[in-house]
Amino acid sequence: MCQPPSVGLSITLSVLAESARASAALVVPSSPVGDHRDVEAVRAFARECDVVTFAHEHVSGEVLAALEADGVVLHPSPAALVFARNKLAMRQRLTEIGVACPRWAQVRDTASLQSFGDEVGWPVVVKIPDGGYDGKRARVVSSPEEVVDWLAEVALDAAGGEGLPALGLLAEERVDVVRDLVVLVARSPSGQACTWAVVETERSEGGATQVLAPAPGVDPRLAAVAAEAGLRIAGGLGVTGVMAVEMFEVTDLETGDPAYMVNNLVMGPHTSGCWSIDGAVTSQFEQHLRAVLDLPLGDTSTLARWTVMGNVLGGDHRDLYPAYRHLMARDPALKVHLYGEGVRPGRTIGHVNVSGSDLDDLRARARHASDYLQGVITQ
Amino acid sequence: MCQPPSVGLSITLSVLAESARASAALVVPSSPVGDHRDVEAVRAFARECDVVTFAHEHVSGEVLAALEADGVVLHPSPAALVFARNKLAMRQRLTEIGVACPRWAQVRDTASLQSFGDEVGWPVVVKIPDGGYDGKRARVVSSPEEVVDWLAEVALDAAGGEGLPALGLLAEERVDVVRDLVVLVARSPSGQACTWAVVETERSEGGATQVLAPAPGVDPRLAAVAAEAGLRIAGGLGVTGVMAVEMFEVTDLETGDPAYMVNNLVMGPHTSGCWSIDGAVTSQFEQHLRAVLDLPLGDTSTLARWTVMGNVLGGDHRDLYPAYRHLMARDPALKVHLYGEGVRPGRTIGHVNVSGSDLDDLRARARHASDYLQGVITQ
Repeated sequence: MCQPPSVGLSITLSVLAESARASAALVVPSSPVGDHRDVEAVRAFARECDVVTFAHEHVSGEVLAALEADGVVLHPSPAALVFARNKLAMRQRLTEIGVACPRWAQVRDTASLQSFGDEVGWPVVVKIPDGGYDGKRARVVSSPEEVVDWLAEVALDAAGGEGLPALGLLAEERVDVVRDLVVLVARSPSGQACTWAVVETERSEGGATQVLAPAPGVDPRLAAVAAEAGLRIAGGLGVTGVMAVEMFEVTDLETGDPAYMVNNLVMGPHTSGCWSIDGAVTSQFEQHLRAVLDLPLGDTSTLARWTVMGNVLGGDHRDLYPAYRHLMARDPALKVHLYGEGVRPGRTIGHVNVSGSDLDDLRARARHASDYLQGVITQ
Repeated sequence: MCQPPSVGLSITLSVLAESARASAALVVPSSPVGDHRDVEAVRAFARECDVVTFAHEHVSGEVLAALEADGVVLHPSPAALVFARNKLAMRQRLTEIGVACPRWAQVRDTASLQSFGDEVGWPVVVKIPDGGYDGKRARVVSSPEEVVDWLAEVALDAAGGEGLPALGLLAEERVDVVRDLVVLVARSPSGQACTWAVVETERSEGGATQVLAPAPGVDPRLAAVAAEAGLRIAGGLGVTGVMAVEMFEVTDLETGDPAYMVNNLVMGPHTSGCWSIDGAVTSQFEQHLRAVLDLPLGDTSTLARWTVMGNVLGGDHRDLYPAYRHLMARDPALKVHLYGEGVRPGRTIGHVNVSGSDLDDLRARARHASDYLQGVITQ
């Protein structure tokens, strides 16, 4: 999705692709095939580039170190990527720079987990600090025993105290979440930084979700402090490129005012930011290119009162084409973005954006499009 | 410029490129090098495509006929392309379908030119009906003798009467032009068609020009009849894809009301339509793809009250990069689109778009950007 803005900016993209049929390989002019775990393949690829950035967070420390040693310009830097790859390092740094987070502790044994839970109240959320973000590495537990069982279940090497890993787990209080917000930030190596409108991301039980830009009815003071927190994080962690700050909107128990807590950081363009392709003067993908190339950042103003982005999940359609044609005919203002991936039930295969002034209407149209493309509805 | 919208639509583009360094080759995933005059090269290219369209009007009738004989799906069709390639055929067909044009005649000898000029008033505009659109094939003349001299000058084979070519020239009255308008139309093979807002294109003496979308203060009745004329032309000529109808705004001598006359037709996305990349829900490039693939057409509504597009001409900058950086920093809402072509004085190397509610402000910003990139101004 960085390819469309690269054309006008006159930037030539090259992708180290996992296969010649990878979705990125279908749209960029250069896409050598190689494995991101193969140090020499990545080094050879990087030699042809002016700047290297990442489409995911799974590039190993070993590969990153080799690129750094070669003098490759990497954005975000390995030093910043650490905070997205290790949730303990992230919590520690966020706390140091004064960003609101759920109460947390690094627990290396069941006794410290017990005392943390007793302090903040059970149940608590326990996370394996690094190694992936697939939801399988976090669990809500009501006792230290549940953690020990869970770690055995996910077969994590436990060399710490009483069945807990030596590096420690991240334990966090469960907070009463009013809703999920995301602050999208971009920061360039020169230090220029900006945010987009704070958005609301809908929670869902397995179905397609929506992003509402801006978050409806968000308290202006909350929007301001959340944006300020996003900028502080980007600067404090030395982030370059686009970063998503996933937040909880909570209610301050003392004042009753809306407040935020940072839940998670994701480096690079983020699913929730895809509304900006059609809803902002500068999309997250154009801004990511500008930022990693240290070009001046673009205006992030919205183009419409509201933009709703709806996820599209793979469903029962063997051939998506008739549904895609039908939706274009039914709603000519709908912007359908397909990722060129194979359709597999439950996998995200694209998104739709729709902009205008009537939020309920936009939500219904985006919902219809998501459901129709997934095959959940047939009319 | 069709590549950006192709990504979301999940369409894979291939370009028959004049060289591996051609600007299109730098941005599309497949760009075999070949000469559009080489029948076999074009046939081999077309065999790999589901549908073939054109980036310019210079593909020969022989090549088009070979593709048609192979059963290649061509949009626009050779039958429609004739009207863009031959100005006499165009005038004849436009007159048949009742579209307002300057008074015209096909002249094969000096006597008929004399009588046409005497009827409509000298000077008249004389055009060589086919073979190119570079402005060298049209001239304003005050007598038949000037035409004979001019034809000798451009070394046109003259086998007609008294020095005029046998196929005839197109002679047109000179009209009092209030301003230049363009109606951009898209039409699909199924017959669905749409227009965008009527735009004004600025005349200029060699410098960069601007496009104002929509045309400021255009009479709503004129906008409606001009759009209707555009749709009638697209249908009447069997055009598929995007077509620009270049019009004169004139004053009806009887009623004093604003009226239009069609000056020229250009098949395919048009320079003046580049405002739609940032100023309309569906750009001309996305719409061209939808139309040639017979997908339902997208909404052509404007995204802002005004969008101003400014041409960027090559100038004295050896390296455009510092100017490009400076403009991004000076005006973060400016959308700069560079074509990746070599910079050569006077050649169009890109355009800028800027949208908002204050037309004077937008015009000044677009003018500054065009002039700065060209090197006409340095601050």
